[in-house]
Amino acid sequence: MIFQELLGAELPVIQAPMAGVQGSALAVAVSNAGGLGSLPAAMLGMDALRKELAALRSQTSKPFNVNFFCHVPPEPDVTREDAWRAALAPYYAEYGIDAGDTPPGSARVPFAREAADLLAESQPPVVSFHFGLPSPELMEEIRRWGGRILSSATTVAEAVWLERHGVDGVIAQGLEAGGHRGSFLSEDLDSQMGTFALVPQIVQAVRVPVLAAGGIADARGVAAAMRLGAAGVQIGTAYLLCPEATTSPVHRAALKSALTRRTALTNLFTGRPARGILNRIMKELGPMNPAVPEFPLAASAMAPLRARAESFGSGDFSPLWAGQNSTGCREIPAAELTRDLARFTG
Amino acid sequence: MIFQELLGAELPVIQAPMAGVQGSALAVAVSNAGGLGSLPAAMLGMDALRKELAALRSQTSKPFNVNFFCHVPPEPDVTREDAWRAALAPYYAEYGIDAGDTPPGSARVPFAREAADLLAESQPPVVSFHFGLPSPELMEEIRRWGGRILSSATTVAEAVWLERHGVDGVIAQGLEAGGHRGSFLSEDLDSQMGTFALVPQIVQAVRVPVLAAGGIADARGVAAAMRLGAAGVQIGTAYLLCPEATTSPVHRAALKSALTRRTALTNLFTGRPARGILNRIMKELGPMNPAVPEFPLAASAMAPLRARAESFGSGDFSPLWAGQNSTGCREIPAAELTRDLARFTG
Repeated sequence: MIFQELLGAELPVIQAPMAGVQGSALAVAVSNAGGLGSLPAAMLGMDALRKELAALRSQTSKPFNVNFFCHVPPEPDVTREDAWRAALAPYYAEYGIDAGDTPPGSARVPFAREAADLLAESQPPVVSFHFGLPSPELMEEIRRWGGRILSSATTVAEAVWLERHGVDGVIAQGLEAGGHRGSFLSEDLDSQMGTFALVPQIVQAVRVPVLAAGGIADARGVAAAMRLGAAGVQIGTAYLLCPEATTSPVHRAALKSALTRRTALTNLFTGRPARGILNRIMKELGPMNPAVPEFPLAASAMAPLRARAESFGSGDFSPLWAGQNSTGCREIPAAELTRDLARFTG
Repeated sequence: MIFQELLGAELPVIQAPMAGVQGSALAVAVSNAGGLGSLPAAMLGMDALRKELAALRSQTSKPFNVNFFCHVPPEPDVTREDAWRAALAPYYAEYGIDAGDTPPGSARVPFAREAADLLAESQPPVVSFHFGLPSPELMEEIRRWGGRILSSATTVAEAVWLERHGVDGVIAQGLEAGGHRGSFLSEDLDSQMGTFALVPQIVQAVRVPVLAAGGIADARGVAAAMRLGAAGVQIGTAYLLCPEATTSPVHRAALKSALTRRTALTNLFTGRPARGILNRIMKELGPMNPAVPEFPLAASAMAPLRARAESFGSGDFSPLWAGQNSTGCREIPAAELTRDLARFTG
């Protein structure tokens, strides 16, 4: 009931925002089914964000979530970027790519005034953040229309910090989770806990509702997470094969293979640790590599390799984001999956 | 019910065998309370094992478990051991220890004929293994008196291997677990999953009962693990403060402090990755260090440092084994803890 009161959705399932593999279509399907659909805005320009928000508003009357990153953009570091391109040079050569062609910078921008103004027009009921929180002023904007604010914690210390800074709920992101670790107080991967250890400790440490994320793949997982004290769950990986997701063909193929049994945290694709299926570039240069440019600058150097390899049907250079439990991935409509996930708890 | 039928204990809780921090006293208390107490035999000589088995037989009529390692002992590598002692030299100097005084080798021996003969006398109802399984001939000895055989899996592949080699149940050891990873097919730490991801995948992959381990600290955790499909659980960390455990004063102090929030897998103490509370030597030389002698040979070089530091009340060089969730550690009798852990599921 806490989940429903807080976030307005009927079923205690948040579809995790997954930048790059979904847009409003997945969010709409989940929200209309009674879960909380999420629009990942981290890689959207303002025009695209406006369109996606309009699509959500016109296609569902149910609550939905819009997610932003709020990292501090790094100073560009040409030396480091050049060194990283040099490390990738053999791969560029293999694919006949001119390293000079790779654009610098990254499409990922943190939440800022312009996006907040756009949000104010469509007033999403829930706004979630990754990598901390935006300024108190920007949070105040969201509160003005009654928007609920969530953010991810990967440690107990981060959960306590988020509560102090006014979130309405904490997403406890266990180490099993796919995609980017939401860490913002520490870069120490040793401090990252599995869901089974993290959720109860965060539940004990904060008073706001806790949403469990990481390794939850089916209705039993949802029930188990709630048994640990979570008010609900956030699930990403299980949605990756839904027709409404824009998951690429190489990513879909990997998710349907036994490769899902070996995932790792890697910083090769963006500069921050994120969990994906182990592929060639992760094996050969990583999965973690200290020479990688800072988040999100690392992304541009890999982009042309990824594009070229994918055009040949290869995921060798693609971020094949996935959590440690892909057993819930099914090629069924997101609405059906959502209802199924909540069947013991809805 | 599967747990009870398989292992004979009333409550679906196995007290994890923890070599170095407990003997028969803890096992007796847990078994008499209705759980499955475990005697860790990995560091016991044959005389000590005989005595401990006699103590168990005389103090409980309930089922109990005896645990052995079954690693393949490495060839001694003098060059490597010397190099490692050289790496530790500054610490030896700090404590005025003569490096020549540290005995080579290790007290940890794998399960073999002699121990099997001893077991045959006391016929423990359950025998569990870490690091794989002993030879089919030795397993046959255990079956002769109806002993049930368990072993730990840290990946789906290991669980399938164990089932094929005839175990009666698989302990799914999530990454959260304290002490040694039970890995035996792969040394790749990236393949190690959190409990939330591992348990359901192993449950799906094998037909024998699965016991969940890692991050389970209280009755809600036990219930959650069983919701994921486990037949029962194996819990270690929560027992470390019980009066029946022989946990050292520095270890107890660390477990009662906020230090428990930072654990890591380290190979510094034995040569194999094991989870413990982050301490000085782990920070300064690890937590993982590729120069460490092979398991279990690494133990001897650290032993004198540990002894000396502990005599000054310092745990800087001690293996402070603990899982990622120490919230269940309480200074109460093990019987009370066992009944409490099973209060939603017993």
